[in-house]
Amino acid sequence: MDGVLAKIGLMNRFFLTNEISDNKITKNSEPDFYHHLVDVLRARPGKKIELVSQTELYDVTIENVDEDAITFNEIEKKESHSELPIDVTIVVSNLKSDHTDFLIQKSTELGVSKIIITNFKNTVAKIKDDKKIQRYQKIVQNAAEQSKRLKVPEVEIVNKLSQIDFSQYETKIVAYEESAKNGEKNQLVKSINNTGHGLVAIFGPEGGIDPDEIDSLKQAGFVLAGLGPRILRAETAPLYLLSAVSYQKEMN
Amino acid sequence: MDGVLAKIGLMNRFFLTNEISDNKITKNSEPDFYHHLVDVLRARPGKKIELVSQTELYDVTIENVDEDAITFNEIEKKESHSELPIDVTIVVSNLKSDHTDFLIQKSTELGVSKIIITNFKNTVAKIKDDKKIQRYQKIVQNAAEQSKRLKVPEVEIVNKLSQIDFSQYETKIVAYEESAKNGEKNQLVKSINNTGHGLVAIFGPEGGIDPDEIDSLKQAGFVLAGLGPRILRAETAPLYLLSAVSYQKEMN
Repeated sequence: MDGVLAKIGLMNRFFLTNEISDNKITKNSEPDFYHHLVDVLRARPGKKIELVSQTELYDVTIENVDEDAITFNEIEKKESHSELPIDVTIVVSNLKSDHTDFLIQKSTELGVSKIIITNFKNTVAKIKDDKKIQRYQKIVQNAAEQSKRLKVPEVEIVNKLSQIDFSQYETKIVAYEESAKNGEKNQLVKSINNTGHGLVAIFGPEGGIDPDEIDSLKQAGFVLAGLGPRILRAETAPLYLLSAVSYQKEMN
Repeated sequence: MDGVLAKIGLMNRFFLTNEISDNKITKNSEPDFYHHLVDVLRARPGKKIELVSQTELYDVTIENVDEDAITFNEIEKKESHSELPIDVTIVVSNLKSDHTDFLIQKSTELGVSKIIITNFKNTVAKIKDDKKIQRYQKIVQNAAEQSKRLKVPEVEIVNKLSQIDFSQYETKIVAYEESAKNGEKNQLVKSINNTGHGLVAIFGPEGGIDPDEIDSLKQAGFVLAGLGPRILRAETAPLYLLSAVSYQKEMN
């Protein structure tokens, strides 16, 4: 279920909550990991897996599994460059149906650092507090594991767009489809090129961002950037941005 | 339901099967259009809509609706550049669950010209002949209308990868995730930059492309290109490619 190419020997990857201190992980210290590996995957001695702890990647071979702990007989630190070279935070509207699920899963595959889900004036399916946060965290964790990342993106739910503090961000853009139509094409490229360590990008709901919200964002230092001449749905636009960041920063 | 930004006054767009010859469209000549506009949207005189006929865009205002025909009192040809400057054909595996639906919808938003759905050795949910072709054509037509394109992408179902004729394509790539891992980063950029009018890109099924298939494709002139260092799912990889083509060719 994970990739597009033959993955013979591609190992399962697991994110640990704590640092790896020795050759043993107890059920108490990493209950989710223990449950998934032992109860779900029924892993046996000899199985090789990948562990990620504090954004470091380790190849390990299982030595023994008992009811309290898993021990490993080989632990090898590995090089990996699977994180985007800049942090990308996306701020998105909660969306109808399962579109938010989809959006956060795909954004995670494409390297997003942080996802803030919020309510815009035109958000139809308003999200309340952190009712769904666990579900979303599960989705991004699974997607991060499958896409072989070293970081699980943060997910945050904020009641209102105006409650988000954007002061920490170096580069701030609002995805604005009218921009591209009016012939503006360079803002996205400029923003991506000029970003040293991170950018935040805002994507509105299905009904669009209200002009008052646009004004407030401009006052907060945001620039409007088009994402090409076609109208992208709310759940598609962030994927375009993340792909563009990867293409510009990782492939060129 | 369509975009990310305020679309006050954004008009419905309809693709016509035939050329517009005068100020009247009959129910007989465009039954789907008539049904959608009259029975579903209950359009009234005075309503402005967009019509696309033979990749030309027209603004029209409805003058009258009767049981056989719709007449317009204003027809105005409009400039539009909503098509990618190069033709991109994607060849994809049929996928499990609703992932093929998703893939063709999103690819259409992102500007794809043609989608060939086929069975690879590792395709789990094999597709048979053209059983689903009407459903897929409906999805791409809706997505093309919503994303304000001038062309509805072609969809074709071919039983086997080996039955596809690739001789007409100028640039041929296979999305190959191992490439990026091995440090290859430039093939994608080279392929996109060097393409004058069109490229074809192949994306395997969830289980990956078989090494024998890779060999045959190489013999047919395909090059392997990575899409960044993360493992993208089968339905995500084409979206990365299309976004990269747009970013490179439309935004730079």
